[in-house]
Amino acid sequence: MSTVQPIRVTVWGEFRHEKNNPKVAAIYPQGMHQTIADALGRCAGFSVRTATLDEPEHGLSDAVLDQTDVLTWWGHLAHDEVADAVVAKVRRRVLEGMGLIVLHSAHYSKIFLSLMGDTCSLSWREASDKERLWVVCPSHPIVRGLGPFIELPTEEMYGEPFGIPTPDELIFISWFTGGEVFRSGATWRRGNGRIFYFRPGHETYPTYHHPEIQQVIANAVAWAHSGLRIKDDAPNVSPQKP
Amino acid sequence: MSTVQPIRVTVWGEFRHEKNNPKVAAIYPQGMHQTIADALGRCAGFSVRTATLDEPEHGLSDAVLDQTDVLTWWGHLAHDEVADAVVAKVRRRVLEGMGLIVLHSAHYSKIFLSLMGDTCSLSWREASDKERLWVVCPSHPIVRGLGPFIELPTEEMYGEPFGIPTPDELIFISWFTGGEVFRSGATWRRGNGRIFYFRPGHETYPTYHHPEIQQVIANAVAWAHSGLRIKDDAPNVSPQKP
Amino acid sequence: MSTVQPIRVTVWGEFRHEKNNPKVAAIYPQGMHQTIADALGRCAGFSVRTATLDEPEHGLSDAVLDQTDVLTWWGHLAHDEVADAVVAKVRRRVLEGMGLIVLHSAHYSKIFLSLMGDTCSLSWREASDKERLWVVCPSHPIVRGLGPFIELPTEEMYGEPFGIPTPDELIFISWFTGGEVFRSGATWRRGNGRIFYFRPGHETYPTYHHPEIQQVIANAVAWAHSGLRIKDDAPNVSPQKP
Amino acid sequence: MSTVQPIRVTVWGEFRHEKNNPKVAAIYPQGMHQTIADALGRCAGFSVRTATLDEPEHGLSDAVLDQTDVLTWWGHLAHDEVADAVVAKVRRRVLEGMGLIVLHSAHYSKIFLSLMGDTCSLSWREASDKERLWVVCPSHPIVRGLGPFIELPTEEMYGEPFGIPTPDELIFISWFTGGEVFRSGATWRRGNGRIFYFRPGHETYPTYHHPEIQQVIANAVAWAHSGLRIKDDAPNVSPQKP
Repeated sequence: MSTVQPIRVTVWGEFRHEKNNPKVAAIYPQGMHQTIADALGRCAGFSVRTATLDEPEHGLSDAVLDQTDVLTWWGHLAHDEVADAVVAKVRRRVLEGMGLIVLHSAHYSKIFLSLMGDTCSLSWREASDKERLWVVCPSHPIVRGLGPFIELPTEEMYGEPFGIPTPDELIFISWFTGGEVFRSGATWRRGNGRIFYFRPGHETYPTYHHPEIQQVIANAVAWAHSGLRIKDDAPNVSPQKP
Repeated sequence: MSTVQPIRVTVWGEFRHEKNNPKVAAIYPQGMHQTIADALGRCAGFSVRTATLDEPEHGLSDAVLDQTDVLTWWGHLAHDEVADAVVAKVRRRVLEGMGLIVLHSAHYSKIFLSLMGDTCSLSWREASDKERLWVVCPSHPIVRGLGPFIELPTEEMYGEPFGIPTPDELIFISWFTGGEVFRSGATWRRGNGRIFYFRPGHETYPTYHHPEIQQVIANAVAWAHSGLRIKDDAPNVSPQKP
Repeated sequence: MSTVQPIRVTVWGEFRHEKNNPKVAAIYPQGMHQTIADALGRCAGFSVRTATLDEPEHGLSDAVLDQTDVLTWWGHLAHDEVADAVVAKVRRRVLEGMGLIVLHSAHYSKIFLSLMGDTCSLSWREASDKERLWVVCPSHPIVRGLGPFIELPTEEMYGEPFGIPTPDELIFISWFTGGEVFRSGATWRRGNGRIFYFRPGHETYPTYHHPEIQQVIANAVAWAHSGLRIKDDAPNVSPQKP
Repeated sequence: MSTVQPIRVTVWGEFRHEKNNPKVAAIYPQGMHQTIADALGRCAGFSVRTATLDEPEHGLSDAVLDQTDVLTWWGHLAHDEVADAVVAKVRRRVLEGMGLIVLHSAHYSKIFLSLMGDTCSLSWREASDKERLWVVCPSHPIVRGLGPFIELPTEEMYGEPFGIPTPDELIFISWFTGGEVFRSGATWRRGNGRIFYFRPGHETYPTYHHPEIQQVIANAVAWAHSGLRIKDDAPNVSPQKP
């Protein structure tokens, strides 16, 4: 009998493109979040739920967050509709130790901006570039099981300069047909929380069905799980006894 | 005839303790900001002005910020009284390339929190500890002219863990009589802006009259001056020509 | 039936002080390496052996290194007696993925110098200072189970500036009675290998009998175990197919 | 009358390809080192000399190094012919504060390997790829005067993973026609010395005649000049007076 607890993952999705754009709905009939959740659910050791923008509290009640070890986040059109109070709650949890996986266009989400303190800007193009994600840190647990690169036949392009603080660890750099490069996988520590940004995932391409993309997200969830939840504090302390 | 432009520095002070606490007023009759500004004004190559909380727009109008290369910031009791709109303006300027020197209790200022994305928490004690600031990066321009450490006979204590992102460069570590240590001088890059946090400066001690503390702040202003002001942008770009 | 393999640890010790200095022999009758090995051996999941300078090949034959996942290293007086060929072999293994825990005076070991590429110099004093090691990265697996600091009643002092490359992660900062500070726990990645430097451990004090010091070393061994062994290569590669 | 001293630059070149390969000689009749030196010599504020492998002491006598603020280094075929004693001298100077600019195939030079402590390996191809070097840190002094990228119509390809320690600052990432990416400009601090690695410069292409490549090298020389020469030391120090 095992006493190891599963890692509790909440997969958050904006879930608007899938309802408004037939092309996206055809690729992700239940939503991108459901595709990601299904992939993570097939991994041993994860207990997965989903949450979306149009649910009450965006699906992120205190009860849900209390039972979330790692949160994944995909948003695009509706960053501004995410309530500041929910962002503040999520931010506090990350600083206490909850893991956060930030996907694709969520580089401009309120939660990522608030944790990076930077512009998070980039250049971009929707033109069916091929993307090659090169592994630059082959010993990192996030790339376990991969070869030297992942190739996606068509993706939106994101280009440098990417307005981020120097990553603690740079994991992937992307190459695009059209001539650009991008730091497409990177980690940061904020408070006790571990954050991983992962670039691919434009809604009109089947990226989240790709087995290696699913592998990276699963690896990242396992890596981001700290098992910690330490309240922020600024104690007034006594000197040592002489 | 020299064509070198002076570095335009704005020294921002909360300027409340000095009006409300006779002990502080005795040390800084014109305010801490004025003491800092006077010290910087004696350096060749700086053009210095001051700004304080209770001025309109906290003294930080667009016109002032347009003419500020480096901003220094001291606040303590009234962080919450700084208008969000002013914080947003200052943040934007830092990301465009304005330098920012964050002093002592401004670790909890809105502007520092928004650029760090972290708790910025620490432990603390007001008990007249002696502080020794050790230079850990002797080749950095911020420590030019110093010996191996700066000693302050009495200061407030700040202790680890300090809730900050991994600094780009760690410059000083402090030792306190009561048994604590602290990363008391550190740099980060955000956007095109350079940020330096410098710990000492509790209002009831004459820290900003100390020649070596003045030297560090002057060195930091020179270091933080980028000469850049690049607007944030997220361009939609074309692929290279085949 | 478990299929998890134990982590194979080799504890390397210079083992000279213990034979030449009765004071040291009284504290570590079987040698410091044996005290460390015994402590690690009591942890579930470790398989531990020892190796010392005066054995053939310093106890580090290819057969031993082939079966070593993580190597710990303590040396002091006899760094120069370690054969360059052995250093080269150990270095290659670290770059392939073997973990390395560098203890105390091994800051000046050939292996640490060759992996850091820096002076690794520091200031020092043998005067029975008290040492307090403050945890500055509370979420790191290396500090699991610790409180805010470890206190050692007497230790040799090491002081800043410590001539090391900027650590990937700074874990501990030490405070000493005599007025110094030191980055006493830090990590670096070299090739596929993870390296942890841990300061305490002067031979005339019972530091390696201290339960929290043992805990840190055990945590560090678990953290440094990559499970990887990737040969260095510089392949001549073909372009992608058009 | 100005009292500013010029920055004294020594441009070191292996100078073998130019003598053995007519194709290289046609591009660099006086050697690559001379082309680089000429470019630097046209910048205000630099005093430039050259040194090459086949001179006595490889042209790097104590007298020359005593008068060198920044050293640039290009080598390829004959890394092993560089005397260890000269490497040790150069290494010591870098740690004392001399700047070092490492060019192209010198990623495998003894001096770079000894300062990085890593494999410095990479994948490669000679196939006339186009190279685009993207600026990822637009505010860095090394990219002053550049646009968003530098384009070289033909260059040797270097690909990730590049076996280097995490750079202090990542300045350029390269894109190659054939599908690869590379961290092609990066900085590290070792001791008091600043090091910049810059990828382009295969001997069969006119890369060092390119004005923007010359600009980067000139910027890097200015950036790497510390003005410091601090002897390495490990002092035995006294505690503070009680």
